[in-house]
Amino acid sequence: MASIISTGMTKFGKRPEDLLRLAAESSENIVREFRDTIDFMIVSNSYSGEYAGISGLNNLLTTYLSLDVPSMRVDNTSGSGGSAIATATALVDSGQANAVLVTGAEKMNTGKTKESSKIIASLLPDAEKMAGLTLPSLGAFLSRSYLEEFGADRNAISKVSVKNRYHASMNPHAHFQKPITLEDVVNSKVIADPLHLLEYCPVSDGAASLLVVNDEIAEKFNGHKVHINAIGSATNVAYISERKTFTTIKSVKEAAAKAFRKASLDPGDVDVVELHDMTAVLEIVESEDIGLFEKGEGWKAAMEDQTRLGGKRPINTSGGLNSKGHPIGASGIAQAVEVFHQLTGTAGERQIRNAETGISVSMAGFGNNTTAIVYGDAR
Amino acid sequence: MASIISTGMTKFGKRPEDLLRLAAESSENIVREFRDTIDFMIVSNSYSGEYAGISGLNNLLTTYLSLDVPSMRVDNTSGSGGSAIATATALVDSGQANAVLVTGAEKMNTGKTKESSKIIASLLPDAEKMAGLTLPSLGAFLSRSYLEEFGADRNAISKVSVKNRYHASMNPHAHFQKPITLEDVVNSKVIADPLHLLEYCPVSDGAASLLVVNDEIAEKFNGHKVHINAIGSATNVAYISERKTFTTIKSVKEAAAKAFRKASLDPGDVDVVELHDMTAVLEIVESEDIGLFEKGEGWKAAMEDQTRLGGKRPINTSGGLNSKGHPIGASGIAQAVEVFHQLTGTAGERQIRNAETGISVSMAGFGNNTTAIVYGDAR
Repeated sequence: MASIISTGMTKFGKRPEDLLRLAAESSENIVREFRDTIDFMIVSNSYSGEYAGISGLNNLLTTYLSLDVPSMRVDNTSGSGGSAIATATALVDSGQANAVLVTGAEKMNTGKTKESSKIIASLLPDAEKMAGLTLPSLGAFLSRSYLEEFGADRNAISKVSVKNRYHASMNPHAHFQKPITLEDVVNSKVIADPLHLLEYCPVSDGAASLLVVNDEIAEKFNGHKVHINAIGSATNVAYISERKTFTTIKSVKEAAAKAFRKASLDPGDVDVVELHDMTAVLEIVESEDIGLFEKGEGWKAAMEDQTRLGGKRPINTSGGLNSKGHPIGASGIAQAVEVFHQLTGTAGERQIRNAETGISVSMAGFGNNTTAIVYGDAR
Repeated sequence: MASIISTGMTKFGKRPEDLLRLAAESSENIVREFRDTIDFMIVSNSYSGEYAGISGLNNLLTTYLSLDVPSMRVDNTSGSGGSAIATATALVDSGQANAVLVTGAEKMNTGKTKESSKIIASLLPDAEKMAGLTLPSLGAFLSRSYLEEFGADRNAISKVSVKNRYHASMNPHAHFQKPITLEDVVNSKVIADPLHLLEYCPVSDGAASLLVVNDEIAEKFNGHKVHINAIGSATNVAYISERKTFTTIKSVKEAAAKAFRKASLDPGDVDVVELHDMTAVLEIVESEDIGLFEKGEGWKAAMEDQTRLGGKRPINTSGGLNSKGHPIGASGIAQAVEVFHQLTGTAGERQIRNAETGISVSMAGFGNNTTAIVYGDAR
């Protein structure tokens, strides 16, 4: 399969730049080094029309970068990044392209920021949208169900935020740069009972890019590179009310199982884990669904700091969506960027020692679709 | 490469159904026959957010169809369909999927119909948008340039509309069902001088679907099937003012040349040709750019009825975007549906005799990106 040989990203946060500039900023170093190699561009983005009144972002971006290559946009709401990497890998593996520049970008802090919740809720089925359901409220429902079903300590969820904020403090590209305490989380505003503000990801602008190339190009390249070992994808019904279980996310479970099977790896084998913690409870649930912990045990690992850098099973060393930020189309790409840095030993202060394999879990909606990608070191 | 083994489409036109229902209607026959075979779904759509306030259309659709398969949305504005077929082919050829259901859908007649021109113009670069440029005005500029540069007969452009309306009259899925005369075109309202209303595609709702499968599934299947021989894609700068030529569409020329080269075919070898005639003059220009006629000669073929069914080089037997309609995300898929019917001898009244190979040209914006697909009969 394909390899990643270069990455780039902007700082996530409230950015004055527009969508096009952010997208370009994240890919400029890749374009500078690999202009003559790149032969296709994929833009991972969901809401350029809703937030910025732009369509055809892919072509505006190739024009901006003076790249004379065909392009398209891949969208899967918050899971767009995973789908975009899967598509780039398919283009390269099938021979349709040799080197695909993948840029994920979203500008969410605009005049329409107050409408964000409504824009994001446009992915819910009509009946549930009309019932007033939003993504934040789903996080609250999941928290209640999880805490009740497994008799978990409420603090476990807050500790995910504290841990991810600590990780983010070592990631210069993260939205938030300062560590927080358990008290900070508990004292922050309640958004959807029982969840507090700091247990949700912020509204961020940002972009992340990577270059996916075929074996021939990867072999000739002498710099840092990471092999894409396997991709698994799966779905779930959009109607939350029709799902058989709520505390297990079917699409995450199936996508990760497929990816591990294809890669001939066990969940226990991976060193680097980037999960989709749009709300903190999701990190715990997903850590069980991908098989790092038994169902109902993930909260204990969080309580015991096993998932903190230096622990047995570090998760979201980037800071996760919770603290790095969640510019929708960029998130799945930024996960891969973190895995790339960890597997190539370029993660700086937050480096996991001897990291050789990694997984990223890019989730659309509230588990509507998931793309799990398993990476191996190709140094 | 992959094959197409089933297709479906709705009637294009002003439809009372919403976007989801149209998309489902076009794929119902495929899902009924191949439910257990389909393992991925791609939705080709550009403006679900802008027109219908929907995101995550792909997941809403798999839910609606009770398909437990992963999915994503591919967008490339008016060229979305070609990009979606290219992506499905890559997923199948790379082994990421075995059988991909591709559904293109757009609902454009909504409360926002009057804003259509503005919504579509959101693909233009800021500077040109601010200068008041729209897609219809670009069609007028191209017409003037073409007529002047090649001393062409003005009626040649109108005759494309008359011919495509005649073809559409034999296509029960076309938006327009009745033939028109040259006088009808000339007497219709001037939209952007020199072009008249009937020289533009209408604002249509509709959906089209097809099933792309790997060789193993195609070989076992005994029904009608069409092989995807080759795919070529190319781009152009988004700024019209920065293009070196206006009467040659670089992306169309390069994409078609790549596809023909990969398929080891000459332009003269194809029997079925579906071009992107958003405005009638584009059919003439593209017929030259893909190599059917010398540059500056395409208008003569239109005048002499060579491009009419029964002529030497029939083009757009489906009615084309001009008369079949142009629901943005569905158009490129509907082109492939027409090629499928022609190559499998199921095109009814508008059947081209002994058709063995075909090409579809799916174009984004005003030539911003093009995907050219060459098909061969796999009966």
